[in-house]
Amino acid sequence: MRLSNTITTITGGGSDGWDLFIKARKMISQGHDITELTIGEHDIKTDTRILEAMHAAALGGATGYAMVPGIDALRHAVAQRLEERTGTATTPDNVLITAGGQAALFAAFRAALDEGDTALYINPYYATYPGTIRSVGGRPQAVVAEADNGFLPSYEALDAAATAAAARGAPAKALLINSPNNPTGAVYPRDTLAAIAAVAVKHDLIVISDEVYDTQVWEGEHLSIRALEGMAERCFVVGSMSKSHAMTGSRVGWLVGPEAAMGHVLNLLTNTNYGVAGFTQEAALFALGLGSAFEADIAAPFQRRRALAQKALEGQNAIRLSKPSGAMYLMLDIRATGLSGDAFADKLLMERAIAVMPGESFGSAAAGHVRIAMTIPDAPFEAAIKEIAAFSAALV
Amino acid sequence: MRLSNTITTITGGGSDGWDLFIKARKMISQGHDITELTIGEHDIKTDTRILEAMHAAALGGATGYAMVPGIDALRHAVAQRLEERTGTATTPDNVLITAGGQAALFAAFRAALDEGDTALYINPYYATYPGTIRSVGGRPQAVVAEADNGFLPSYEALDAAATAAAARGAPAKALLINSPNNPTGAVYPRDTLAAIAAVAVKHDLIVISDEVYDTQVWEGEHLSIRALEGMAERCFVVGSMSKSHAMTGSRVGWLVGPEAAMGHVLNLLTNTNYGVAGFTQEAALFALGLGSAFEADIAAPFQRRRALAQKALEGQNAIRLSKPSGAMYLMLDIRATGLSGDAFADKLLMERAIAVMPGESFGSAAAGHVRIAMTIPDAPFEAAIKEIAAFSAALV
Repeated sequence: MRLSNTITTITGGGSDGWDLFIKARKMISQGHDITELTIGEHDIKTDTRILEAMHAAALGGATGYAMVPGIDALRHAVAQRLEERTGTATTPDNVLITAGGQAALFAAFRAALDEGDTALYINPYYATYPGTIRSVGGRPQAVVAEADNGFLPSYEALDAAATAAAARGAPAKALLINSPNNPTGAVYPRDTLAAIAAVAVKHDLIVISDEVYDTQVWEGEHLSIRALEGMAERCFVVGSMSKSHAMTGSRVGWLVGPEAAMGHVLNLLTNTNYGVAGFTQEAALFALGLGSAFEADIAAPFQRRRALAQKALEGQNAIRLSKPSGAMYLMLDIRATGLSGDAFADKLLMERAIAVMPGESFGSAAAGHVRIAMTIPDAPFEAAIKEIAAFSAALV
Repeated sequence: MRLSNTITTITGGGSDGWDLFIKARKMISQGHDITELTIGEHDIKTDTRILEAMHAAALGGATGYAMVPGIDALRHAVAQRLEERTGTATTPDNVLITAGGQAALFAAFRAALDEGDTALYINPYYATYPGTIRSVGGRPQAVVAEADNGFLPSYEALDAAATAAAARGAPAKALLINSPNNPTGAVYPRDTLAAIAAVAVKHDLIVISDEVYDTQVWEGEHLSIRALEGMAERCFVVGSMSKSHAMTGSRVGWLVGPEAAMGHVLNLLTNTNYGVAGFTQEAALFALGLGSAFEADIAAPFQRRRALAQKALEGQNAIRLSKPSGAMYLMLDIRATGLSGDAFADKLLMERAIAVMPGESFGSAAAGHVRIAMTIPDAPFEAAIKEIAAFSAALV
């Protein structure tokens, strides 16, 4: 079978960065007792009330084709919530419901890129970003956000990357950002967003803003770049029920953008998924109706564990917490141990039975770091952090 | 916002063929009493037992990220079912679960095409086919299957189209077929499939075989082109729970293909949907477990209504049933009335309050026809057919 060049190069030829994760999962399946701090999935399940609402909707007949743009009530609720949270006028016509945030991300890149176009994204990055760009035939171009600058991208680095892409004859058409950030926990402040906006205007880029962690902010506040002057017309915002409502497996997300663009995106959604299950949309609608108190409850464990980790790491200097302003992860700077993130994570797994993600899994800019998902209950989480601290102290 | 050429040309600049449908829906929303025979959706809802299985799975914890390839048990069940139905060796490694048949179709075209490559498909065709090809940057090239040849494609027409595409410098890489066929009801016999296979081998095409109506065959038998000698290695088969199990809204389907290709397709699925909801997969697994008797029950109403229509149309010569061998539609040849399908459907809607799809909605080869979905209960269905017969008789 003679496959397309596009599909055979989605991984870019490299590892997908999940070797450590797969190794840990294999050890678990062989009966080893491993503490897993690898993936971004809540240690709680989806709330039973939400599941009951889903079941009621299904029994009530929401089992046929749903409207491809999404059910009206959910589009309305998403628009209203976004408007309230960001202060930017948003109507249901700006909103399309997608099969999770990943489907929204894919749609945004398809909307922005033709084959051969460059898309900029920030290194470190979430695992699927370069592959999503390649899936539409685009060229992913990472822009380093330095660890020593709090993993915030700079105007200069972004501008240089866009200029270089144009010089290569593959001009950049899109720029993907993610705040609150996975894996670094960075929450982009206003001046960083302003710098990004300036680059976008200068190079006529579509900004794709992945804001799926917008309810998980521990310091500062979540700002959407779409709220900046003039940016609503050049932004797509990716949102999802996954992280905010512990509904990762339900695959309900959305893309928000200019109304004129959304008609074209709808054409794509017709040809990719032909809509999202009506009963999961009804579940999402019910969940949004639980309001911000529910969202705060879902986020609370991560804030609590972050404080536990900060306390547990006090008074040692082998590892350093990169300022974790948001999201459900901690990025630990382990450069003082002299090990790479890969080597540290492997040694930690083999010697202490704790699985963390090597920073290198998220790009070169996170080398010398490991990412810890705060996704196990408080007591074992605290014990694991102390174990990691002791393990690290013995290395320096 | 400067959108990609790919996304802005998905519709090919034409109507999407659903104008009549939208007009009818509008009239209904305004309070008109319209008999709708337009879309391919069962008049029953998803079976309550399946919904209870889904709910049990959700309450049981299937609410987190499911494995992106699909849950093992479902991949196994799909493989086994396909092997039993087609006699072709199939393992779970040949199967990936997708968000409905449409997502499988999209993945197949992404696997086959780079930007600018041609994909052949048969005219008449299901509405999303050309848009799906354009969504990956491909060039859709329709190949006419003549009404007077039972809407079966010929070797000569397919070979000529592939040759012409190569001459244009945009060689064909894929050929999409659909049997049992929507909209025509044609079930491709072995010699037609053999001719298609011969063209595929000659021009090194990937065959994408949409077999979502494989449980709805009224004459002859369903044959999968994948079962033909040497074809398993150049075929993708698209399947779905939608039509066979009345689960249209659940969005569970699959793509079946050579194991070596499926690893690449999995990379795409990771970057498009990041998996399918675990609880809907569990529902599908339960539904498949209901066995072929359940599938026959779901298909039975269409076979019954087809017989009702045949009887109701006896002894008149204004309209002619194109041999409806399978699927949930009837294609009526209305050329004797002197009207186009568009004009006939519009007049029928306005004068008799019955909505059917103009053949032209499915391509030029279905001009002078209308498609009737057999998706309302028997009594009003029979009455509508009689009404259409009387309406047509008055035109000739």
